[in-house]
Amino acid sequence: MPRAHVDPDRLRRELESLLGARRVSMRDGDLDTYARDMWPRLLLARRDGQLPEHRPHAVVWPETQRELVALVKLARSLAIPVIPYGGGSGVCGGVVPLRGGITIDLKRMQAIRSVSRDEMVVDVEAGLSGERFERELRRRGYTFGNFPSSIYCSTVGGWLATRAAGQLSTKYGKVEDRVAGLTVITGRGELIETDGPSRAVRGPNWTQLLVGSEGTLGIIAAARLRLSTAPQLEIFRGFEFDDVAAGTEAIRRVLQRGLRPAVVRLYDELDTFINSLGKKAATGDHAGAPITTGYGAPHDLSAAPVPMPGEGALPVLPRPEPPADDGVVSRLLAIARGRRRGLHKEAVGLALDHAKLVNRIAGTVARRGCRMVIGLEGARIRTEVEAALTFAELAHAGGRDTGEEAGWAWLAHRYAVSYRMSPTFRDGAFVDTMEVASTWERLMDLYHSVRDAISQHAVVMAHFSHAYAEGCSIYFTFAAHADDLAGSRRLYDTIWRDGLEAVTRVGGTISHHHGVGLLKGPYMAGEHREGMAVLHGLKQSLDPDNLMNPGKLGMAAAPTGVPRKEAS
Amino acid sequence: MPRAHVDPDRLRRELESLLGARRVSMRDGDLDTYARDMWPRLLLARRDGQLPEHRPHAVVWPETQRELVALVKLARSLAIPVIPYGGGSGVCGGVVPLRGGITIDLKRMQAIRSVSRDEMVVDVEAGLSGERFERELRRRGYTFGNFPSSIYCSTVGGWLATRAAGQLSTKYGKVEDRVAGLTVITGRGELIETDGPSRAVRGPNWTQLLVGSEGTLGIIAAARLRLSTAPQLEIFRGFEFDDVAAGTEAIRRVLQRGLRPAVVRLYDELDTFINSLGKKAATGDHAGAPITTGYGAPHDLSAAPVPMPGEGALPVLPRPEPPADDGVVSRLLAIARGRRRGLHKEAVGLALDHAKLVNRIAGTVARRGCRMVIGLEGARIRTEVEAALTFAELAHAGGRDTGEEAGWAWLAHRYAVSYRMSPTFRDGAFVDTMEVASTWERLMDLYHSVRDAISQHAVVMAHFSHAYAEGCSIYFTFAAHADDLAGSRRLYDTIWRDGLEAVTRVGGTISHHHGVGLLKGPYMAGEHREGMAVLHGLKQSLDPDNLMNPGKLGMAAAPTGVPRKEAS
Repeated sequence: MPRAHVDPDRLRRELESLLGARRVSMRDGDLDTYARDMWPRLLLARRDGQLPEHRPHAVVWPETQRELVALVKLARSLAIPVIPYGGGSGVCGGVVPLRGGITIDLKRMQAIRSVSRDEMVVDVEAGLSGERFERELRRRGYTFGNFPSSIYCSTVGGWLATRAAGQLSTKYGKVEDRVAGLTVITGRGELIETDGPSRAVRGPNWTQLLVGSEGTLGIIAAARLRLSTAPQLEIFRGFEFDDVAAGTEAIRRVLQRGLRPAVVRLYDELDTFINSLGKKAATGDHAGAPITTGYGAPHDLSAAPVPMPGEGALPVLPRPEPPADDGVVSRLLAIARGRRRGLHKEAVGLALDHAKLVNRIAGTVARRGCRMVIGLEGARIRTEVEAALTFAELAHAGGRDTGEEAGWAWLAHRYAVSYRMSPTFRDGAFVDTMEVASTWERLMDLYHSVRDAISQHAVVMAHFSHAYAEGCSIYFTFAAHADDLAGSRRLYDTIWRDGLEAVTRVGGTISHHHGVGLLKGPYMAGEHREGMAVLHGLKQSLDPDNLMNPGKLGMAAAPTGVPRKEAS
Repeated sequence: MPRAHVDPDRLRRELESLLGARRVSMRDGDLDTYARDMWPRLLLARRDGQLPEHRPHAVVWPETQRELVALVKLARSLAIPVIPYGGGSGVCGGVVPLRGGITIDLKRMQAIRSVSRDEMVVDVEAGLSGERFERELRRRGYTFGNFPSSIYCSTVGGWLATRAAGQLSTKYGKVEDRVAGLTVITGRGELIETDGPSRAVRGPNWTQLLVGSEGTLGIIAAARLRLSTAPQLEIFRGFEFDDVAAGTEAIRRVLQRGLRPAVVRLYDELDTFINSLGKKAATGDHAGAPITTGYGAPHDLSAAPVPMPGEGALPVLPRPEPPADDGVVSRLLAIARGRRRGLHKEAVGLALDHAKLVNRIAGTVARRGCRMVIGLEGARIRTEVEAALTFAELAHAGGRDTGEEAGWAWLAHRYAVSYRMSPTFRDGAFVDTMEVASTWERLMDLYHSVRDAISQHAVVMAHFSHAYAEGCSIYFTFAAHADDLAGSRRLYDTIWRDGLEAVTRVGGTISHHHGVGLLKGPYMAGEHREGMAVLHGLKQSLDPDNLMNPGKLGMAAAPTGVPRKEAS
């Protein structure tokens, strides 16, 4: 795909006349930084000291919707692309400027414009950091309920552009379930407000059309999002099941009974085994943990109604430190989860070069069973009742209660994985994750097919999370190793090809919440088939010049906008 | 708008070669029947013996998706419109064939293809009657949870095409909240399956784009819908509040606390007053009613888990007969609710000709307060807990418990209103309903503004229902009278114009669940503004010849497809 042509001096002049010199950059350092996100395939090249293949022509930091409109109109007049950019934490290459253009960093648009107590919605600008967003809401007695592991380095707009899911999505839903309306600047430079202030019919729904469009139809500038009351009570617990089939069946029963734990995570045999290595016995040092008793007999229903937001929501309780994990084997294998830094390079290489062997451990350790972490939160009485019913259901389905600590330990570490990837790459290996989903009926087929496909090439483990009444997602983590960049890339591409082909074969979906970007573009047509015509029609209508983040979601990067079957 | 031109003999020949002679009709009786739905403005003309202004060229009854594709392709080749037709129970003129064409009745496509116990979804064809759909699901231990008052005469496809809501939407959601995927034949004759079998990211969401499109983008042929477990327990109760402001505030508190009653309905002062006339004192004849006690102290949480669908869901319990309503004034005024037939024509005219006077009753009877009906249903223990918390919240907000009978009486009559319109029209008056919505903040403003606007011309009462955490809908019922057809139409149009202008002025939405059709088309642009460009773009993409139900949702009926500001 040809890089868009533009006179750099003219571009700088035009951009600076819109934003001033301080909010425009064409410096090499900035262009390199904004050339990529956290897609591991790009990190491989960076580890090797290679410069980015595709860089934007310029990076800008607008502060108002008016400036966004002006930027899109300028880009159209110059016929160069526009790439919206949030936290840069994506893992699919969704922000790579395939034809150059103007990368628009939205992080200076981060106001919480209003929190409506009457309507329980928040009007927020797209560039706000996820962690700060949640912190500000908690201060007011609310939660948005979206807790991706990237929460410290992702933005609200990024969540919306990719249909993100947080760890507590089983209770709070994915982001698309919480959107009342969006403010979007289309590729035509038109500002559109979707859905307005109120629940409405009024024909097709623009909101869901733009959520998940990954910058290909327009720029999400602001959103109206639905809030929940901050929880009064959190209850965490561990369970253990004989195998993944028994564990997933238990989750299905809980969900289909209408129970909504905030989070339920079932780890497969290998993951459970690795986690169990080097674990200390319970040492009684958790006296500070919140103790919740009597789930079987909720009490005090005649008490005054629970406080409304702002009338006395409880502070967050202190959590116990997680048990230390100091086993030697654990340190070796934990590379696959990005947990440890400073591992000895050769040792890692040894493990990863014998991926099939390591994977086979799963077969021999199956008797150890599968670990489950489950958490519930919400208003006090209802949460206690829901926990009692949920735990009874899990026990009925063959689960063995392993106590509260197992649950709290997960909570303490829940964001860690997103910040442990770089050390792995320095060690000469790479690690990535593949989050797919299917209906319950196909779930075991999906698990075994994808696991078998990946384990030919890499150490692979998985957990089941983000459960729904009709199905569940599976989150595979894999680590592999090759001697040079070319070899690593080849291996990386092979793993993804074999994995996603397995997904398509059994009727799963290629992505649950990481988005599509460049990585999964080639598989869009296989999943959508005739439906791709709708996407091309929308693209034509909202972005006729194909300037909005071209080449993503399986659409053409070419300036002519001709549909193609496969992304590069 | 010019009627499409087609040679009738050729049309008949082509249609019969596709479907056979028995599933094609060009008989006058059929063309007259399919010329309209239940839009009161059309009923006015019919009462006067007028023939329909717009009739289809032909009516057909396809049985397969392949036939649907062939029909759309045939219509394109002949350049005549296609109008999908479900139960014909719409109240906005959505099926009126403005330019003639082929009206496709989908009621022969009514199979329940599968009910997946594993996934809790049902695959159902669009033409299935709503009542039969729900009955079949109950037999299997499930519910779809959509109970519009039209349930006996509307179809699943019609619900989806209009974003319908049922009476229990507060628990089960509107239909758009329950759709996992659609099978749609676009205006290009392409068959598209949206969303597939599993929860997925994959960019924009086609499903929500087609739900509510009212036949203007394609034909909904089948759907995959999410199921709930049939309730084990139903709890109904009546409450009374000082006024609508206190009552709506109570509803807001319940919803924002995360409680989800199946239904909450708050009747305004006039409605409450009329309902109270002629009401018998409780007579103790409700011994057969389900008695539910001890909400304040849920018990037996340690019991075995509740049965799964099919493992022993409870049969539906018998309901008490509602109290008779035999007051004289009630009979006079109940015309506004379509309750009584055979009213003396002059008496009705007298009341309706003094609409302002009757409306003023509301001011003088305000001390009587506002009636609320509330119902909860679901799994036994959780429903008991939720009822206890909900009733405590209502009491805390100033509600006075009026007992169970008030709730059960509503349930017994809940579908009645849809089948009592014709007698009203025979009496020389007309009655219609206007369902609007807004956020909580604007709700009282919306109520008073619309009520004031309509009450210049008609007797008007209202109830609040379909509540959400962020807002609520208001359902106005109005009745009026004029001496002749021209006068009635003028009055009818004036009421709607003044009412919807008031809605737009205060920032409400023009429709909550009846759809747009012809009636509200002129107000689409006022609400969507720049967003209409998206709809026009979609239309251009999926139906480039503007043959799919032309002239609806505020889009042009003209064959050229040029956007216009107002529908006829």
